[in-house]
Amino acid sequence: MEKDQYYMNLALQEAKKGRFQTWKNPLVGAVIVKNDQVLATGHHIHYGKSHAERDAISKLTPEQLFNSTLYVTLEPCNHYGKQPPCSDLIVQSKINRVVIAQVDPHKLVTGKGIAKLKANGIAVTTGVLAHAAEELNRFYTYFYQKNQPWITVKQAVSLDYRVNDQVNTRTAITNQSVYDRVHRERANYQAILVGSNTAIVDNPSLLTTISTDYPPIRIVIDRRGRLLQHRNLKLLTDGQAPTWIFTRNAELQNSLTNEQVKVWLMKTDQLSEIIQTLTEEGIQSVYVEGGPTLANAFMNGELANELIEYLSPHFLGKAGTAGILPSYKIMLKNVKFEQLSGNLRIAGEIDV
Amino acid sequence: MEKDQYYMNLALQEAKKGRFQTWKNPLVGAVIVKNDQVLATGHHIHYGKSHAERDAISKLTPEQLFNSTLYVTLEPCNHYGKQPPCSDLIVQSKINRVVIAQVDPHKLVTGKGIAKLKANGIAVTTGVLAHAAEELNRFYTYFYQKNQPWITVKQAVSLDYRVNDQVNTRTAITNQSVYDRVHRERANYQAILVGSNTAIVDNPSLLTTISTDYPPIRIVIDRRGRLLQHRNLKLLTDGQAPTWIFTRNAELQNSLTNEQVKVWLMKTDQLSEIIQTLTEEGIQSVYVEGGPTLANAFMNGELANELIEYLSPHFLGKAGTAGILPSYKIMLKNVKFEQLSGNLRIAGEIDV
Repeated sequence: MEKDQYYMNLALQEAKKGRFQTWKNPLVGAVIVKNDQVLATGHHIHYGKSHAERDAISKLTPEQLFNSTLYVTLEPCNHYGKQPPCSDLIVQSKINRVVIAQVDPHKLVTGKGIAKLKANGIAVTTGVLAHAAEELNRFYTYFYQKNQPWITVKQAVSLDYRVNDQVNTRTAITNQSVYDRVHRERANYQAILVGSNTAIVDNPSLLTTISTDYPPIRIVIDRRGRLLQHRNLKLLTDGQAPTWIFTRNAELQNSLTNEQVKVWLMKTDQLSEIIQTLTEEGIQSVYVEGGPTLANAFMNGELANELIEYLSPHFLGKAGTAGILPSYKIMLKNVKFEQLSGNLRIAGEIDV
Repeated sequence: MEKDQYYMNLALQEAKKGRFQTWKNPLVGAVIVKNDQVLATGHHIHYGKSHAERDAISKLTPEQLFNSTLYVTLEPCNHYGKQPPCSDLIVQSKINRVVIAQVDPHKLVTGKGIAKLKANGIAVTTGVLAHAAEELNRFYTYFYQKNQPWITVKQAVSLDYRVNDQVNTRTAITNQSVYDRVHRERANYQAILVGSNTAIVDNPSLLTTISTDYPPIRIVIDRRGRLLQHRNLKLLTDGQAPTWIFTRNAELQNSLTNEQVKVWLMKTDQLSEIIQTLTEEGIQSVYVEGGPTLANAFMNGELANELIEYLSPHFLGKAGTAGILPSYKIMLKNVKFEQLSGNLRIAGEIDV
């Protein structure tokens, strides 16, 4: 069993090599072992490209594969997607044992890959380092388990809990180290969400500095259609990433829709309607960077899974806008503190 | 010079042995060296007892002391206080070189000890690890340089910057590690200050868990005299440390004064009057633990030198009272973050 954990840990490290390139697909790593020797490693390199199992198997001869053991961080798929099913390939390869960390939470897949392997006489062990594998794809896991995206609310506040030094202005609160961190952090999410006020007052790009073919979609909630008066915002014109606008103003759909911008017409004023649409679109994770009004709506609607706060240890003065003020007590779990040269990062999951 | 720093560092370590026992006196350490050998060490052990120089010198014979070098973290005194002047003793001991870290900021002493040594043909070097020595007695140094006490304002807040979950109630916000830390931290100060509201609502003891003969004086600001209706508060009855009450209500002086409790009648409503009295009484440091109203008065009056915040990473809900909300921007310097098993400590000096 210790050997299984050792090789699975290698597979987990291998999986991480695909970070930021697999988009809606999970990170997956694979290791092929025979006679206590690692013969090949592989990982899911890029959305639409080979799965980890195929990547590793393709590096070996039939003789090498015969009677070998495959370690893979996620249950092999058993359906035709962008790639043919990995389970078939494993059976054909005469691999005689498969060790799996996480059973796939995806409804189309769960258990079926394992059943196929077993039906073909392959010994299957599951659950080895399962928790680490789930953490590796925690948004993917959550999305397919709960059928809704993981929502992280972020705020940057001063020591006196202000998000600006004056209402409706943009104030640089945190320092360069936070700026750098947030610009990298965005790449962990499939969408970044702000309110129209933030879009207009801050005119942010909401891009990530991480090199990726799948930058997060920039989402603006603009119920009334204020963006009609602000067509030059970077979000609408920079061509750097898709932008989605959720509105109740039908005029936006005709006026703002283009190659970069997609406008969704809302039937209600509810955030839950937006989340439902995002779910249907397969958006697994959302980073809410809007102002406190939007953040409060997510918190009080019990829609947020995680809070990330960046704290600058200075007072801005009481004229500014307060940060998130939920209506009731909210406990955080798995809290992590991190010091970022002069500023702090506090992250915790919300017990919902 | 490196040797001087080495021995001075030993003296600084020696000085720390007196911590919490020297009261209004500074921590002082001394090391006597001859032919590159440490012959004796000493420190100021207790208020009213031998100074560090005398403690070290008393351990050696006249032969050993002859032509030796004395390292002392603070300029030797040259006046009669509770002890005869150290400068005379050094001269009599035939020590032929004295190395000093910090020149005494105390007006009665500064430079005079050094002058006496030099006048008697002793070589004197000053400023070796001076900054470390000043830090060791930073409240003492500040008090004698500025002629006012060092004032630290402390608050404990939730992630949403609440000091309670409902106005005028006591809420346990932070955890046991903060409780322990605060109870030790108090011993660094000569006084702890709260408002009457905190005294009444929380009924705190405001004691330190550090063993000391000089627990901080507990100060309550009670301008109107509300304590007349609350005579059973721990502060007024527990006999564990002195309590001072600052009031404008003359009735308190007759009603509450006893062995433990001293009542000061204020001429004005100003905090500055209280600080003036504390200065005259030789109180070098004050730890303000009152609620946000009192803390705001200190911050907005530019009376605070340092802020210590304890942060619990949970939301209490907007019904509670906000923490310190100064009227203007306040930058902190020398900021220190410290993680206390699940809670945070943020400390910084206020640029005044």
